[in-house]
Amino acid sequence: MNIEILNTGSELLLGTRLNTHGQWMGQELFKLGLRVSRLVTVPDGEAIHGALDEAVRRADVVLVTGGLGPTSDDITREAAAGVAGIELIEDEAALRSLEAFFAQRGRPMAPDNRKQAQVPVGAEVLPNPHGTAPGIYIPPRLNQAANCAVFLLPGPPRELYPMWAAEVVPKLRALSGGGFRSEMRQMTFAGVGESDLHQEVDTDLAQIEGLEVGYCARLGEVDVRLIGSQEAIDVGRARVMQSFSQQCFSEAGESLEEVVVKAMRVAGLKLATAESCTGGLIASRVTDVPGASAVLTHGWVTYANEAKMAELGVPAEVLAEHGAVSEAVAAAMAEGALKASGADLAVAVTGIAGPEGGSEEKPVGTVFLGVAEQGKAPRVVRQMHPRDRRGFKRMVSQSALDLIRQAVAKHEESNLIADSP
Amino acid sequence: MNIEILNTGSELLLGTRLNTHGQWMGQELFKLGLRVSRLVTVPDGEAIHGALDEAVRRADVVLVTGGLGPTSDDITREAAAGVAGIELIEDEAALRSLEAFFAQRGRPMAPDNRKQAQVPVGAEVLPNPHGTAPGIYIPPRLNQAANCAVFLLPGPPRELYPMWAAEVVPKLRALSGGGFRSEMRQMTFAGVGESDLHQEVDTDLAQIEGLEVGYCARLGEVDVRLIGSQEAIDVGRARVMQSFSQQCFSEAGESLEEVVVKAMRVAGLKLATAESCTGGLIASRVTDVPGASAVLTHGWVTYANEAKMAELGVPAEVLAEHGAVSEAVAAAMAEGALKASGADLAVAVTGIAGPEGGSEEKPVGTVFLGVAEQGKAPRVVRQMHPRDRRGFKRMVSQSALDLIRQAVAKHEESNLIADSP
Repeated sequence: MNIEILNTGSELLLGTRLNTHGQWMGQELFKLGLRVSRLVTVPDGEAIHGALDEAVRRADVVLVTGGLGPTSDDITREAAAGVAGIELIEDEAALRSLEAFFAQRGRPMAPDNRKQAQVPVGAEVLPNPHGTAPGIYIPPRLNQAANCAVFLLPGPPRELYPMWAAEVVPKLRALSGGGFRSEMRQMTFAGVGESDLHQEVDTDLAQIEGLEVGYCARLGEVDVRLIGSQEAIDVGRARVMQSFSQQCFSEAGESLEEVVVKAMRVAGLKLATAESCTGGLIASRVTDVPGASAVLTHGWVTYANEAKMAELGVPAEVLAEHGAVSEAVAAAMAEGALKASGADLAVAVTGIAGPEGGSEEKPVGTVFLGVAEQGKAPRVVRQMHPRDRRGFKRMVSQSALDLIRQAVAKHEESNLIADSP
Repeated sequence: MNIEILNTGSELLLGTRLNTHGQWMGQELFKLGLRVSRLVTVPDGEAIHGALDEAVRRADVVLVTGGLGPTSDDITREAAAGVAGIELIEDEAALRSLEAFFAQRGRPMAPDNRKQAQVPVGAEVLPNPHGTAPGIYIPPRLNQAANCAVFLLPGPPRELYPMWAAEVVPKLRALSGGGFRSEMRQMTFAGVGESDLHQEVDTDLAQIEGLEVGYCARLGEVDVRLIGSQEAIDVGRARVMQSFSQQCFSEAGESLEEVVVKAMRVAGLKLATAESCTGGLIASRVTDVPGASAVLTHGWVTYANEAKMAELGVPAEVLAEHGAVSEAVAAAMAEGALKASGADLAVAVTGIAGPEGGSEEKPVGTVFLGVAEQGKAPRVVRQMHPRDRRGFKRMVSQSALDLIRQAVAKHEESNLIADSP
């Protein structure tokens, strides 16, 4: 079933409002096994007419939001009636519930509101207990030329969401005949680039019948989306995991910080952070997660060398000999944070965010990441992320969180071995 | 000039990602005096072909984002070449910068990436220093049937935004012939809400002939945009400043952290941060600004009470008597940070981010912000930001940065007075 969404609203195109309907409706439709083939946004006023006319020719179902208000640029009702070639008439029941809405709030009904009771002849009124604009459902038989079902829905989420659940979902189920089902699985990876992942698995995935594969890369992570029958998904997932199970941090759409906080809570482990170049971003991402206070106890932003010495006990001679951006300093920062905090695990980063401060040996983008654990020697990795400042910080925080995730996983593994008889 | 935006990405229609490009591009175009007439979102793959074919027939300019990646469902290049009826060829220079991108990061280039150097014959390559996918500009003369300019732009914001500023804006200016000229001034305010600002000035602004006024609110700040003749803008600006000059932190579109770092650098002042509920976000925002190392020396994330005592010297009895979220603890944290760092100015925050931890006296959203300066008694303000965790952190960091901004301004003012004969 081919579904299109049509959002109206000048504020969405001027950028004064963010359009969240597309995401919300996409998620709701997917729950029903349905997918959106196109989403179109047009300004208030006349533009809806042409866009709707095109949409009903392409789609089986068109979901329109907005333009049902009382003002002169709210013309969705008129456009839909025009496209279907039917008249608008005042609906008795719709007018009565409009009047009741105002009476209940002790407010007079403005004359302009009366047009909100206009309905295309033969269409169905969808009650709106949360606002003045009733929804309208035009069944396919009324759009005879196009044979397309059209829903006119209010724009405000507090009106749209209840109407969706009560009125739209049952009609969509009936329209789709319940015949079409597809499952989806999404896996998220850190520590591997989109192109390397694609290169390794895509040819094999392409050979699995009935499997649709999508990739979506963000800074320092990549999603692989598998859509199809449960069987096709299982085979596809196994192929991806065969190569990248170590890099997969979530199959539930969680962020890396959510995964880290959850794993540390479950393991009963405490975390400390010692940050130079990321300037607090690692701690901030951890504390974005509810319940982070059970995990993170101490964090330091030791931007100045004096701070590294005084707060984390990094020896002056190590700084002098190796420089602040070095393996030795990353190790000393992690150890110092572990000692000062008494946490189970400490992560430290020191690097060159730029744009100043690079050298031939250590260009802008160089970073050393250290991990210290109670009773173990600290480990340090060197990475290179030549990006703008914020991109660099994001990549480094991503690597740091992934190092913590791996350290917690190893910790739990060795505990399991130690516990076994 | 009729402009359409075409966003590709299945994740946008499945609802797994929110499409923020529409809003951002709408705002950016508006700054140029341009408006979007339609925004269309289609899934990855073949759908881009039909949507682009329709768009070039309606519009003078089509801005496409996404689908320039290395994977099999990235076919924006192919679709654009097909619609224009021209061939794709490998561009020497594009291939070389692609190879340089990987070389700089010490990673081998996957063979799949090579297709990212394909360019329609005669089109212009738009360099992408932040990613692998170069942008492409197809001038109207190449789309002969439609006479429409087409821009192919990368999807990730970190790649799109710099390319927009460097490559797209100059071309849009040229295409629009600069004929639409109106001046614009934008002022950004913190510490006053959009509705209060609107309430106070909008009636007066509406009476200024030829002045168009726009408001744009983000978390903890609001823009006022004045568009019109220089004279109308000057009158409008004076009216806004009459009421809100204290709250205006930029007239150049700078972020609050940029303003703070710049002011402290100019004044030669050093900053320390002591964060509980913001978990490092204040320090992270400061260190997003190039040159922050000249300003921020020390930061602490003292999430646990032990950290507040050990790192900042908050007395145990103050914590016991007043609780961690209190005026006394905010003051002690700020003083402790000032003392331990030797900085000129320290800011401290302690509050309840939620969703747990609220009480009747101190509900979720309560925060105390302390500012300490060398030679002065610390000052503390109490605020209330009942929001989700990330929203709360953002609002608190915004208030903290604004307190620093005001403290620096006062410091400079009293210096001027002290210096005067």
